[in-house]
Amino acid sequence: MRESRFLNSDYYSKEGSEEMKKISEMTKAECEQLLAENCRAYDEWKAKNLKLDMSRGKPGADQLALSEEMLSCVDAGHCIDNTGMDSRNYGGIDGLPEAKKLFEELFNKPADNIILGGNSSLNMMYDTIARAYTHGMCEGCTPWCKEEGLKFLCPSPGYDRHFAITEYFGFELITVPMKEDGPDMDMVEELVKDEKVKGIWCVPKYSNPDGISYSDEVVRRFARLKPAAKDFRIMWDNAYAVHHLYDEDQDEILDILVECEKAGNPDLPLIFASTSKITFPGSGVAMLAASKKNLDFIKKQMAYQTIGPDKINQLRHVRFFGTVDGIKRHMSKQAAILRPKFEAVLELLDKELAPLGIAEYTRPKGGYFISVNLPKGCAKRTVALAKEAGVVLTGAGATFPYGKDPEDRNIRLAPSFPPVAELTMAMELFCVCAKIAALEAAVK
Amino acid sequence: MRESRFLNSDYYSKEGSEEMKKISEMTKAECEQLLAENCRAYDEWKAKNLKLDMSRGKPGADQLALSEEMLSCVDAGHCIDNTGMDSRNYGGIDGLPEAKKLFEELFNKPADNIILGGNSSLNMMYDTIARAYTHGMCEGCTPWCKEEGLKFLCPSPGYDRHFAITEYFGFELITVPMKEDGPDMDMVEELVKDEKVKGIWCVPKYSNPDGISYSDEVVRRFARLKPAAKDFRIMWDNAYAVHHLYDEDQDEILDILVECEKAGNPDLPLIFASTSKITFPGSGVAMLAASKKNLDFIKKQMAYQTIGPDKINQLRHVRFFGTVDGIKRHMSKQAAILRPKFEAVLELLDKELAPLGIAEYTRPKGGYFISVNLPKGCAKRTVALAKEAGVVLTGAGATFPYGKDPEDRNIRLAPSFPPVAELTMAMELFCVCAKIAALEAAVK
Repeated sequence: MRESRFLNSDYYSKEGSEEMKKISEMTKAECEQLLAENCRAYDEWKAKNLKLDMSRGKPGADQLALSEEMLSCVDAGHCIDNTGMDSRNYGGIDGLPEAKKLFEELFNKPADNIILGGNSSLNMMYDTIARAYTHGMCEGCTPWCKEEGLKFLCPSPGYDRHFAITEYFGFELITVPMKEDGPDMDMVEELVKDEKVKGIWCVPKYSNPDGISYSDEVVRRFARLKPAAKDFRIMWDNAYAVHHLYDEDQDEILDILVECEKAGNPDLPLIFASTSKITFPGSGVAMLAASKKNLDFIKKQMAYQTIGPDKINQLRHVRFFGTVDGIKRHMSKQAAILRPKFEAVLELLDKELAPLGIAEYTRPKGGYFISVNLPKGCAKRTVALAKEAGVVLTGAGATFPYGKDPEDRNIRLAPSFPPVAELTMAMELFCVCAKIAALEAAVK
Repeated sequence: MRESRFLNSDYYSKEGSEEMKKISEMTKAECEQLLAENCRAYDEWKAKNLKLDMSRGKPGADQLALSEEMLSCVDAGHCIDNTGMDSRNYGGIDGLPEAKKLFEELFNKPADNIILGGNSSLNMMYDTIARAYTHGMCEGCTPWCKEEGLKFLCPSPGYDRHFAITEYFGFELITVPMKEDGPDMDMVEELVKDEKVKGIWCVPKYSNPDGISYSDEVVRRFARLKPAAKDFRIMWDNAYAVHHLYDEDQDEILDILVECEKAGNPDLPLIFASTSKITFPGSGVAMLAASKKNLDFIKKQMAYQTIGPDKINQLRHVRFFGTVDGIKRHMSKQAAILRPKFEAVLELLDKELAPLGIAEYTRPKGGYFISVNLPKGCAKRTVALAKEAGVVLTGAGATFPYGKDPEDRNIRLAPSFPPVAELTMAMELFCVCAKIAALEAAVK
C-alpha cells in the first residue's frame, strides 16, 4: 500500500464506503444535494476562523528540537577539527576537512568530488546557474548571457523555486511530464538534441511534490544522455537523500555520478544536497558534488565570491552526528514525527476524496510532500476556498513552469509543519473545498 | 605621533640614530658595504628556516578566543528571538529581527535600510555586482552584461579582492590615487562624468591598506557626486567600522547615507560591513545598508537566491553582545591584542628603514594593515627575498588594479595573525630584505 506512484482513484472506490458513489456516476440532483451539504460544512469551518499554513515544506517545531543538542557541540576551546584546521578563521573554500569526510562517507564520494557550502543548497544552485550565465559553465564555454533563446527542462509537477531561478535568468521553461518512475525520458532524450537546451531540474528521490524516486532505468538513461550543448548539466537536487518515512521499505536510487562516469559522461551531473531538513532549515550545511573537472572550475570561480563558508557550523554537524550511522539514527527520529502526519493526510484523502473519484495522489515513502490531482480545473478553486477559510496551501500551479498548471489539477500538500491535530483540521477543510470545487464543476 | 597619514621619511631621519645616513646621501662604496652586511644578515635569517605568514588580515588565535563564549549563547530551548521568530526555521530573508535591531543601533539606521546576510560581506559585494551584471542595478536599469566598455574606479592602494570582483566581470579598472584623507576627489568627480563608469570601491575608515579614514570633506564630495550613469554606485565597504586600535583618539567618519540623503542622492551608496573581524572570520554576520528603494529592489532579486541567512548565528551575536556598548567593550579587548603588534611593526620600521630614507608608511589608528612605500622598483624584490627566507607577505602589486603597482613601491603589512615574537622576527627579516632591495637599486 505504500507504492510511490499515482494510484488511480478507481482503486479507492472499492475500499471506500460502498454507499459512496463516484461523482461521475451521480445525477445532477445528487451532485447539487452533496454540494449544498458541503457548502454548509464549509460555512461551519469558516466560522472557526482557522489560521493554518500547509504551504511549504517547513519542518515542525518538534523536528527542530531533535537537533538542538547540536547547538552546544562546538564550544570554547573546541574549535579545531581533526585535521588541525581552525574552524573559526578564514579559509577552506570547499569546506572544513573533517566535515567533508563525513559527507564523503554519506555520499560515497572522494574529497575531490565534494564542496561544502553555506546554509542554503538553493543558493548553491542559483550561484551555479548565475556563474554559467556570467562566465560560462565550463572552461571555454560561452557565458549564457551571450547566447539567445536558451531553454531549460522542467519535469512537472516540480519545485517552484527551481523553475523560478531559470525563469529569472530568461530561460524558456520546457515542461516535461513526470511519470511513475521519473521524468518522461523519451521526451528528455529528444529535447536535449537542441543545443539551446542547457539543463534539466531533477529531484530524483522522494521528488517534490510527487514523492517519486527515479527508477534505475531512468537514472541510466540520464547518464547516457548525449546533449547537443556541451554545457548542458543535470541539476540533480538530492534534497531528500536520507529523508525516509519508514525504517524499512526505503527508496534507494542509483548514484548518478557513478552512472555518468560509466557512460563516459562524468561532467553531466551537478548534485546538490543539504542538511536543511536534517538539522535546521536556516542553519544547515549545503553540498555540491560533481566531477573533479567541474569542481576545479567552480572553485576557481568561487574564489571571487567568498573566502569560505561557515566552518564552525560544519564542525557542529560533525560533532553532533559523529558518523553516517548517526545521521541515519537521527533521520529515523525525524521519520517518527513525520509519519503520523503523512498518514493523517492520506487517511482523509482515502476517506473523503478517493471514494468520490475526484482525487489521484501519491503515497510517498519519504520526502516532504503529497501531490494531489483533482479533476481538471479544480485546483485553483480549491486553494482559493481553503484560503478564504484560513488554510494556506501551496498556490495552485506553483508546481509547474511559470506557475501555470495547464490542467489546473495539481495541489502540493505539505504536512510537516502543523501539529497533527491542526493538520487534521486543515485536511478536513481541504477535502470539503475539493469536493465543492469538483461538484461545482460537475453541475455546471 | 599617531596621525593616520603618510609620513615623509625625512621626519624619521631626525629621530633615528644620528649616525645613520640616508641611502641617497651615501657614496657607492658605502652602499656596497651596507649591502654586503645586509646580505650576510639575510643568509643568517635564511638558515633559521622561518615559516611565517603576514600576507592577509587574519585575526590571531588570541583574538578569536575573545568570542568563544558566543558559541554557547544559543542552546537548546533558547532559539526564539524577542519578536517571536524561530531562528531555526526557514524565513527572514533580510535577517532575524532581534539581530537587525542591534545593528540598526550600531549603524544608526532604521530596519528598512538594513539587510543582514550570511558569513561574508565579500559575498554580498560579489552578489551585488553579479546581480547588476545579470539583471541591472535598479528598476529599469540595463543589465551590465548587455553593455560594453564598462569601467570601475579603484582607489589605490586598495583591497585586492574588491578589484578582483570587478576585473572578473570584465570592467576596466581605473586607478584613482589615494591621498591623505581619501581618494583624489578631483579625479573622481571628473571620471564619473563618463556614463561607462559604474561605481567605485571604498574602504572609508581605516582603509585597506593605508589605514586612512576619509575626511568629512571627502565624504561630502562623494555624497554630492553627479555621475552620468544612473546605475553608478559607491561600494562603501565599512569593514573596519568599529576596529579602533586605541580606546581614545579614534577616527570617526561622516555617515555616507545621511550625507547622500542631504545631497539628494539617497540611492548612491551601498554600505557593507561584517562581524568577521569582530567575532569569527568564517562565522560572522555580514550586513548591507542602503536606501529603502535600493534594498526593496535587492530583496526582490534575493528571493531567487536563497530562502534566508543563518539566523541562529545572528541570534548568537545578539545574545553575546547584548547592546552596542557590548560590541564596543569587545572591540576594546581586540584592540588591546592588536595594538602591541602594530607598535612592534612601526618600531622596527622607525628604527631600521626610516633613518635610511627608504620607507614611507602610515601609522593607522585602526584597521588591519600598515602600508609601506619603498623606493621605486623595490617592492617585488623585497617580497621575493622575504618569501625565499620563509616569510610570506602580501604579493607586491596586490594593492593595485590588475595586481600591478605602476611604481612597484607599495607593500601591505598585515600584523594581526602572528604572535608578537614571530611578528618581530618577520619584521626584522622584512627590514633586511627592504634594505637589500633599496641598496641593490642604489648601486646599480
